[in-house]
Amino acid sequence: MDLADIGVTGLATMGRNLARNLARHGYAVAVHNRSYARTQQLMQEYGGEGTFVPSEEMATFVASLKRPRRAIIMVKAGAGTDAVINELADLMEPGDMIVDGGNAHFDDTRRREAALRERGIHFVGTGISGGEEGALLGPSIMPGGSKESWEALGPILQDIAAKVDGVPCSVHVGPDGAGHFVKMVHNGIEYSDMQLIAESYDLLRQALGATPAELAEIFREWNRGDLDSYLIEITAEVLEQVDAETGKPFVDVVVDQAEQKGTGRWTVQSALDLGVPVTGIAEAVFARALSGHPEQRAAAASLQGPYVSGDGARELVDDVRQALYASKIVAYAQGFDQMAAASKEYGWDIELGAMATIWRGGCIIRAKFLDRIRSAYDANPELPTLLADPTFADVLNSAQEAWRRVVTTAVRIGVPTPGFSSALAYYDGLRRDRLPAALVQGLRDFFGAHTYQRVDKEGAFHTDWSGDRTERPA
Amino acid sequence: MDLADIGVTGLATMGRNLARNLARHGYAVAVHNRSYARTQQLMQEYGGEGTFVPSEEMATFVASLKRPRRAIIMVKAGAGTDAVINELADLMEPGDMIVDGGNAHFDDTRRREAALRERGIHFVGTGISGGEEGALLGPSIMPGGSKESWEALGPILQDIAAKVDGVPCSVHVGPDGAGHFVKMVHNGIEYSDMQLIAESYDLLRQALGATPAELAEIFREWNRGDLDSYLIEITAEVLEQVDAETGKPFVDVVVDQAEQKGTGRWTVQSALDLGVPVTGIAEAVFARALSGHPEQRAAAASLQGPYVSGDGARELVDDVRQALYASKIVAYAQGFDQMAAASKEYGWDIELGAMATIWRGGCIIRAKFLDRIRSAYDANPELPTLLADPTFADVLNSAQEAWRRVVTTAVRIGVPTPGFSSALAYYDGLRRDRLPAALVQGLRDFFGAHTYQRVDKEGAFHTDWSGDRTERPA
Repeated sequence: MDLADIGVTGLATMGRNLARNLARHGYAVAVHNRSYARTQQLMQEYGGEGTFVPSEEMATFVASLKRPRRAIIMVKAGAGTDAVINELADLMEPGDMIVDGGNAHFDDTRRREAALRERGIHFVGTGISGGEEGALLGPSIMPGGSKESWEALGPILQDIAAKVDGVPCSVHVGPDGAGHFVKMVHNGIEYSDMQLIAESYDLLRQALGATPAELAEIFREWNRGDLDSYLIEITAEVLEQVDAETGKPFVDVVVDQAEQKGTGRWTVQSALDLGVPVTGIAEAVFARALSGHPEQRAAAASLQGPYVSGDGARELVDDVRQALYASKIVAYAQGFDQMAAASKEYGWDIELGAMATIWRGGCIIRAKFLDRIRSAYDANPELPTLLADPTFADVLNSAQEAWRRVVTTAVRIGVPTPGFSSALAYYDGLRRDRLPAALVQGLRDFFGAHTYQRVDKEGAFHTDWSGDRTERPA
Repeated sequence: MDLADIGVTGLATMGRNLARNLARHGYAVAVHNRSYARTQQLMQEYGGEGTFVPSEEMATFVASLKRPRRAIIMVKAGAGTDAVINELADLMEPGDMIVDGGNAHFDDTRRREAALRERGIHFVGTGISGGEEGALLGPSIMPGGSKESWEALGPILQDIAAKVDGVPCSVHVGPDGAGHFVKMVHNGIEYSDMQLIAESYDLLRQALGATPAELAEIFREWNRGDLDSYLIEITAEVLEQVDAETGKPFVDVVVDQAEQKGTGRWTVQSALDLGVPVTGIAEAVFARALSGHPEQRAAAASLQGPYVSGDGARELVDDVRQALYASKIVAYAQGFDQMAAASKEYGWDIELGAMATIWRGGCIIRAKFLDRIRSAYDANPELPTLLADPTFADVLNSAQEAWRRVVTTAVRIGVPTPGFSSALAYYDGLRRDRLPAALVQGLRDFFGAHTYQRVDKEGAFHTDWSGDRTERPA
């Protein structure tokens, strides 16, 4: 029997579709699942799509792989991942490769990579985005790990990845946890994108009294311009959906409590460690958390707000489009800052423009917009913030008045737009010559002798607040 | 030689002042410091304030304590704390008590408490707030740990703590990490308080063209009303300070980059784990992070904003006062939610009203306001959110119009007020009947088959978005 080029263990929807994607591209794919029934089901339903080498046992699975062995783990991230990794590693030899395609935390990936490196085994933590359909038809793939592992895996991953203008949506992100880190930030940005879309929908519905079907048309129209993206596209689809049972708009029969999975939360937690303000992602994660507390919402339901007439001016539609785009630029700028900070902190040497490139297709946040980010970093790889890129600065400068009208309208009629308003506050904060942080430093020196710096000379200073209020070097 | 009632090791400013506080209350205090010079200095300068028992070696220090021994560690939180704890524990006997008065992370405290419990030693992680002055004259003290340790320590802690209306600002918070957790949230709230003050100052200065001295008067006036608090009081002091060297307002010579220490960041990270939206604290932490990136601020300086005339109407002053108070209620509601969630998660049984009680005096966020929070929990210990307390609901309802004027003014003139606007968005979100989270759930089901719930029947559902768009139970 011929040996397989690559293996996949864990054949739930994502794993199965990734295996099929590999087989459809002409690779002989070893397949394994803890319960053999799933492997048999794959063979039965899709066995004709290419060359699969099924195994009931992990040992046979490993034995069925060409050397150096390449095995992809597609199991739910968590403690179970360690068990599968150890089982695989015990059956492997130095030079072999274990690829974790789940949403592991990058700290876990760093730990696992270090442990397997000791044993001569390459561990590749990789982000894979695109959902079930992406896994089958071409996802965005973000692998970390050693350069050697990329040499052996890269051609296959680029082969099965999505392509945009002929360019595959996969590159070597960087060592150890870099791939999972970048996938985490991708997901954080996805949270922010969805929150901004939700605010746009909500504000227009309230302010204009528009129906979901009318709003679907607005999003469809937006999808033909700067906002062209997968999430805007499917927003139109979801808004236009009618519930078969009640005849009501689908969005009105769905419980309005959004769930959060780990990656959005992790993104904000990591950003706090790195000192990078990711307000857009944080507000998105917290908006979901707020929605998920029905007992608090019930208790607060009688709090007062303004009267909403629902007869706002149609000009608001284009204002919201501009506010959405401007807020999106801020959220992405923050996410890219976070990747830059992590790259520096962990020595990953992540090429930011390449991340924008591989997010252009395959993944959930795919959008034309990412091509503009790629261009921005092509023009200046050392760009201190995306907001300073001339193209984005132009967009922001011409959008800022509309953006302000949107936030003031929302505030006036009592529609919560934490994503829009925090993005605008970030914009106004970053461009500000002097911030009131100087007062905060004064207060900290007053109550805690934390000292402060002066604008006119070097050094740290403390004022004797409880005494004669003179200043001395600290 | 008589044995000491209690000991303090670590005699930097906080430790020294705590030891003096104990001695002034009539306790015989064993004192120790890694370098003996500091101990000698304490004896020389303050030895006459009471009974001190100095030791050069840790072994002598421990031997100088009455049984069961009570030793307070006052060292900078971090890895060094473990070394001191181990050194102490090795010299102690079952039934003795080690008290960590530093700002340790509650996870570390839980780990340390569990390890020492195995050895029969009580470990008490305690928050101590009030800075140098509080440590000496009466801080707010938030001890965790066993009930037995509280029985032995409580009377002393209550003796040296601040008193408000004769009630000491110290109670037993709960087991293991509860004390340090509550201190962490206290500090997170402190971040939020300072951010809201900074926004108030900044907005009034820009909108009215007021001088820092004029603003000092406004804060002083506010301190006579609902906002009466230590931080508002010292804001007036800082704003009125004139730099001796330049003759400029002090706040204008201070570098406007605020530093963050661990506790603000930890508060937000923990809230993310607990699923509690603490937007006020998060925006405050991120506002400091933003201020600390001068290279990005310089790059973004040319981004456009509206023209600020500085001739706004004086009515704005009272609007800002109301916005500050309303935003403060939101930030505290979020912080108290976080304590409630942690109490449930870790089995701490924290009494929320008691936390408000012990924060009324001694600590940095001390304020009349906390008495109103205490009353709210007295009236209803199961209050689902402070926003639903009738007194606070009245304040919010009557403040919401002014609050909206403040945020729209800030947005219109380009002054960043992330604290005000995110608090208002939280208010508008929590009171909302239907949130656009329903759309988010629809999108998540579309791209990731994450399923959703319906408002009209039980169960989880999935729509076949890529097929005929029918719904089926998931």
